[in-house]
Amino acid sequence: MVNIAVMGYGTVGSGVVEVIRANGDIINQRVGDEINIKYVLDLRDFPGDPIQEKIVHDVDIIINDPEIRIVVEVMGGIEPAYTFVKRCLEAGKSVATSNKALVAKHGAELLSIARDRNLNFLFEASVGGGIPIIRALNSSLTADRIEEITGILNGTTNYMMSKMFYEGADYDEVLKEAQDNGYAERNPEADVEGYDACRKIAILSSLISGQQVDFEDIYTEGITKITREDMMYAKEMGMTIKLLASSKRHGSHLHAIVAPALLNKEHPLYSVDDVFNAVFVHGNMLGDAMFYGSGAGKLPTASAVVADVVDEAKHLHRNIMTMWKNEKLELLPIEDTSKRFFVRMEGGADARKAEVEALFGPVEIVRVSGLDGEFGFITEVMTEGEYGKKAAQISGILHMIRFEEQGAEA
Amino acid sequence: MVNIAVMGYGTVGSGVVEVIRANGDIINQRVGDEINIKYVLDLRDFPGDPIQEKIVHDVDIIINDPEIRIVVEVMGGIEPAYTFVKRCLEAGKSVATSNKALVAKHGAELLSIARDRNLNFLFEASVGGGIPIIRALNSSLTADRIEEITGILNGTTNYMMSKMFYEGADYDEVLKEAQDNGYAERNPEADVEGYDACRKIAILSSLISGQQVDFEDIYTEGITKITREDMMYAKEMGMTIKLLASSKRHGSHLHAIVAPALLNKEHPLYSVDDVFNAVFVHGNMLGDAMFYGSGAGKLPTASAVVADVVDEAKHLHRNIMTMWKNEKLELLPIEDTSKRFFVRMEGGADARKAEVEALFGPVEIVRVSGLDGEFGFITEVMTEGEYGKKAAQISGILHMIRFEEQGAEA
Repeated sequence: MVNIAVMGYGTVGSGVVEVIRANGDIINQRVGDEINIKYVLDLRDFPGDPIQEKIVHDVDIIINDPEIRIVVEVMGGIEPAYTFVKRCLEAGKSVATSNKALVAKHGAELLSIARDRNLNFLFEASVGGGIPIIRALNSSLTADRIEEITGILNGTTNYMMSKMFYEGADYDEVLKEAQDNGYAERNPEADVEGYDACRKIAILSSLISGQQVDFEDIYTEGITKITREDMMYAKEMGMTIKLLASSKRHGSHLHAIVAPALLNKEHPLYSVDDVFNAVFVHGNMLGDAMFYGSGAGKLPTASAVVADVVDEAKHLHRNIMTMWKNEKLELLPIEDTSKRFFVRMEGGADARKAEVEALFGPVEIVRVSGLDGEFGFITEVMTEGEYGKKAAQISGILHMIRFEEQGAEA
Repeated sequence: MVNIAVMGYGTVGSGVVEVIRANGDIINQRVGDEINIKYVLDLRDFPGDPIQEKIVHDVDIIINDPEIRIVVEVMGGIEPAYTFVKRCLEAGKSVATSNKALVAKHGAELLSIARDRNLNFLFEASVGGGIPIIRALNSSLTADRIEEITGILNGTTNYMMSKMFYEGADYDEVLKEAQDNGYAERNPEADVEGYDACRKIAILSSLISGQQVDFEDIYTEGITKITREDMMYAKEMGMTIKLLASSKRHGSHLHAIVAPALLNKEHPLYSVDDVFNAVFVHGNMLGDAMFYGSGAGKLPTASAVVADVVDEAKHLHRNIMTMWKNEKLELLPIEDTSKRFFVRMEGGADARKAEVEALFGPVEIVRVSGLDGEFGFITEVMTEGEYGKKAAQISGILHMIRFEEQGAEA
């Protein structure tokens, strides 16, 4: 029997209990042993819930029990999760977590503690919920140099962007609807400002580079400025707008960014709608691949956590190598990255085209019926730095959105 | 140093050599040791190719060399691959293969030999080329009961179906074009009759059931009867037609089938075009997930083979468990499986609707402009057996294509 403890009996924690209860037979068969939940740590009590008899309020009970081999951390947040996880690893227990904030900030250190003790620290559920992208990077795409990872990593904002695209709705409208449906929180900042996606792409960037990528270094722009009018232009051009989190290799550097982007129909992420997440990967041998699934939700997330428990139970005294050193990776400054830019501009296209082209070079003009007194254009490829300098020299820019072309150099 | 041998220096074999040459530094870092190709087995010589010095013509040199720890089998076909692989395993060497015919027929036995000797027999590249679906099933989706796997598993036929859809071309036309482009072989039977997809879904069915699924038991229908007119109906209904290979769970049974199917835009496989492959998976906790990528091609396939070599080099004395017993699984007979059917029928819809509905119950009539003297309809859900009986009672059926509804019971 492999005894485990679950720290946190919230949405994901209760999901973990449910997955082990529902699929215990196949899970035990795969482990080759019986997984038993011995403790559930929570500040609260759950009278009437069968879990109540396993509830403990003191983490030391878990840490000091040598029978506990694996600890599931699904409390969220940095503290006390960090202290608890570190103490569990130091006490010889493997840890599985869904906590992206913890992994983005302390992943390298916790992995190193696990490695030194022949334990495992796994975090499949921290990125993409039920999508097995982390294990794919660690165990499947091992013959490749990963040149790019671009993902739709936040379900809330993807739901909102999909609504705006299909229903022509306004940002405020879809945010309210998402909140009413429980897809967005009352304080939606972490989602709509891109902070959640930023921590996730920081984790993926660390994994593909093998070094520490600090999320604070990643340029992050949310969806709060995306309007109904932007989406009308996107439709006119046969495109859509998604919040993308992306990490691309330039020699030994990475460039990472979280921002809304225009995608055309040829891009594999174009048709990823609603609360679904997807991760596009380009390997130098593999070519293009994509992983798609439920990025959040109680059971998909819990399924990923329990898959980590299964792996840890099969490798109780053996570290599954993850290359992620503490050494910090410097990202390529955003000013030096190149792409095409879509710009919405006040005025008439006929009147202003010469002025625009004098500055930006040849552009494709886009007009949308119903939107008078403005027009849009897509620039040639240039660096963010160049774009910024040019944009400062012309008046009347209403909005700029980056164009994510598949296969284009960033 | 981990010495390996490559059996077969054809397309995939030379790809394996190229991947190890190009990405040797990261591959060795991931293994924690140096991978060295010591022998390449081929009947031919390759004068002038740097590989020539490693070429051997006699498999016994590989089998009798205790330095060889891992053997890559990329010859294809059942014999002599089966005999060679079995002898390698019995001589204490792990084996990685891309050979779907070998795995579909002898997978259970070869896995059992590997398990008994603490070796590994891995075959990621045998299904979906560069798409890491097999490792996902074995190591990632381990907390789930997999209820369905439906895939576009053959790039040649998907290329042809995409051409027919986008260009309104005829079957014979696109087959010739695919042959001219090198996407289809001069003798295209294995692809267009569905035999290739059938072996692949047999492998996936065995993995999700843990028992032997014989490919001979799987109902298999190719794309040779799909016409330009069928595709016109599909378009009229907002759908497309794809060759799907599918395996669905009914209690302890599986139902597996390879056949062209109508898909609507909501299905994740709808937008998988050209030579790309994709695998849709539904788990009882995970919900829906999809894996997409290059299903064939020299480097994507070689990348998957080398990822298996990496895994085997990291587990030289430890079997990575794969649940696939020799015990045969009886599939649910196709007659007992339920779905909706699209039927094309001679005559006028107005004249024949009553006759059709008297037999099939209420149907949705579809007319396509330009196709006079015929109409189409989609039935309610019924078993294949019921459909067959009804279809025998009415004259003028031009073609029947199954409708693959996501989330529908099969």
